[in-house]
This record gives sequence, C-alpha cells and structure tokens, in this order.
Amino acid sequence: MRTMKLSRAFTLLEPGPVVLVATNDGRKNNVMTISWTMVVDFTPQFAIATGEWNYSFQALRKTRECVIAIPAVDMLDKVVGIGACSGADTDKFAKFKLTPIPAKVVKAPLIKECLANIECQVVDIVRRHNIVVLQAVAAHLASGRKETRAVHAVGDGTFIVDGRRLDRRRLMALKIPPGL
Amino acid sequence: MRTMKLSRAFTLLEPGPVVLVATNDGRKNNVMTISWTMVVDFTPQFAIATGEWNYSFQALRKTRECVIAIPAVDMLDKVVGIGACSGADTDKFAKFKLTPIPAKVVKAPLIKECLANIECQVVDIVRRHNIVVLQAVAAHLASGRKETRAVHAVGDGTFIVDGRRLDRRRLMALKIPPGL
Repeated sequence: MRTMKLSRAFTLLEPGPVVLVATNDGRKNNVMTISWTMVVDFTPQFAIATGEWNYSFQALRKTRECVIAIPAVDMLDKVVGIGACSGADTDKFAKFKLTPIPAKVVKAPLIKECLANIECQVVDIVRRHNIVVLQAVAAHLASGRKETRAVHAVGDGTFIVDGRRLDRRRLMALKIPPGL
Repeated sequence: MRTMKLSRAFTLLEPGPVVLVATNDGRKNNVMTISWTMVVDFTPQFAIATGEWNYSFQALRKTRECVIAIPAVDMLDKVVGIGACSGADTDKFAKFKLTPIPAKVVKAPLIKECLANIECQVVDIVRRHNIVVLQAVAAHLASGRKETRAVHAVGDGTFIVDGRRLDRRRLMALKIPPGL
C-alpha cells in the first residue's frame, strides 16, 4: 500500500462504490458492507447512513473511528457475504479471509485486499436521520493490484461494475479543486 | 414516461450516479449537477450535500421541493456544462435544451431527456453539515430509451460509465426489502 494525498481521498467515494467499513471496538476487529455514503466536503468529509440496526454502529459510536475500504469487483461475493451476517456472532475478518493491517492514525484496521483504505474520525452523529459525518485523516492505495474496478450496489441484489472512464477535465476545469 | 413504484426509487440513487436537481423558485425553472447524494432510508429518503454556493439552494430552501433526475451517459456534456454555469445568470433549461415536464406532486419540473425523475420534498436541512434530507413522493422512468447507462463522477474531471450488471440476488435475499 502507498499513501494517497488526503485532498484526493474524496475521489474514492464520489463515484458511489459499495464500501466496507472496518471498526475495532477495543476488543476485536469488525467490518460491515454499506452503500449509503456521500462526500460532504473536499476537506475531505464524508457522510454515511447507519444506525442501531448495524452491529458496527456501537463501535463507531464508542470509538468514534473507522476505516472506509473500497473493495474491487473480484471481492464481490465477500462484500455481499459480509453484508449478510453480523459481527455480533461472526468474526468476519476470519470468515471472509480479510487481512487486517494496522492503520496510521486510527485503531480500526485497514483491509489489505481492498483497492483503497480511508482512515476516518467521527465528526458528528446526526441521530434524527441516522447520518454519521466522518473526517478522513489518512488514505492509502493498494499498489500493483490488477483488478481495479469498483462495484455499485443497486439495492435489489444486483451490482453494476465500473465501465470505461470518460475524460471531461477540460470542460470541468473551473470546478476541480486546485491541485487535484 | 411511466410511473415507478416509490418503494423502488432508492435503487436509482444507491449506485451513486451523477444527478441533476431541478427546482422552480416560483418564477423559473433551474437545474444543477451534483454527485454528493446518498440514500438514508428505504421509505425512500435521500440526503444531498449542498449549500449557499449553489444558486439552486435558495429555491430548495424556499420551496422545499425539487426533482432529482438521473441523466444517461449520452447527456454527459450537458451534465458537465450544467455544473459549470449558474442559474443566477443562465436559463439552463434553454441553454442545454432540456424539456421540462410538469411533475405530479411538486412544482419543480421533470426532465424529459433523463433516465428517471424522482419528485422530492425537503424533510430537513442540517445546516451545520450542509446536508438536505429529502422525501421522495413520486418517481418516473423513461420508456423506450435506448441508452440506459448512468455515469459516476470521480471528482477530478473524469467520469465512470456503468459497466455490466452482476446478479447476487440469491446471496442477498435476506437483505432485500420485501416486494422489491
């Protein structure tokens, strides 16, 4: 893995991929699958929608830290499997053969197999909408990974794989944050 | 256009496409491009991140209504163009040759050229994070459109087109809302 400039970290979440959210509650690592995420600021800040119905929410609330990891399409069955069971009774890192790597700032683990990992701290929990606002504090990119396509959940059990990339940098010049 | 079951409307936003947000401030139609969106509830409720820096925010705050329209990849140059100018001095429906169609519930217009249109009412504006929470009240799908691939903004001026769709309905059976 190599360090990614923090100012670019929002480009990992803006396209809307399914992500894994890794936590460590002080005793053990856990991970959940979510696709309800958005960028809220270039600083970068992200929002995720989650609540009591996700076991990971307890760790998120208690430790105020997590890692958002972006899986590639070759991990899709793991991603779906992770979403279909609970950390309450399952060691998901063991069950899905994920390799935890120590993060730089937070106690939650990075996931070695993923395309990218973003270390985050909780800024705020907007309880009435189950929205958690996160501040990214470090970001890491996998190096030498062959499959780099992310996947997008439709929500009905189907997933859309990244297709080709179109360049509109010139048209968008005025809207791209400086230095990106 | 044909009506879409409201309970399925979240499947339009969950994959994270770039969207157009249409408003009508009581005098004229306007439209902006955003990619900072997420689902927050199956009811369906959505969150978008926006604020004073977007001219449309005034109309959104005043009327508490908008239409979220999903453009297809054949509209990408329009989508980028719409994001690069302001309704403060531009009639974007005219400039980008968008066809406004009366919506069923809200006063903001549907956009005929798009893949889908979701009529929304503002539930709440979380000012400290510039998050607007929306309740979808009606949804419409284009009928007979040939190009149905959406696009995903990376944020650096490049865009990822929808690729192939993978089916994991069986694996996800327990997680799919009933009736979907």
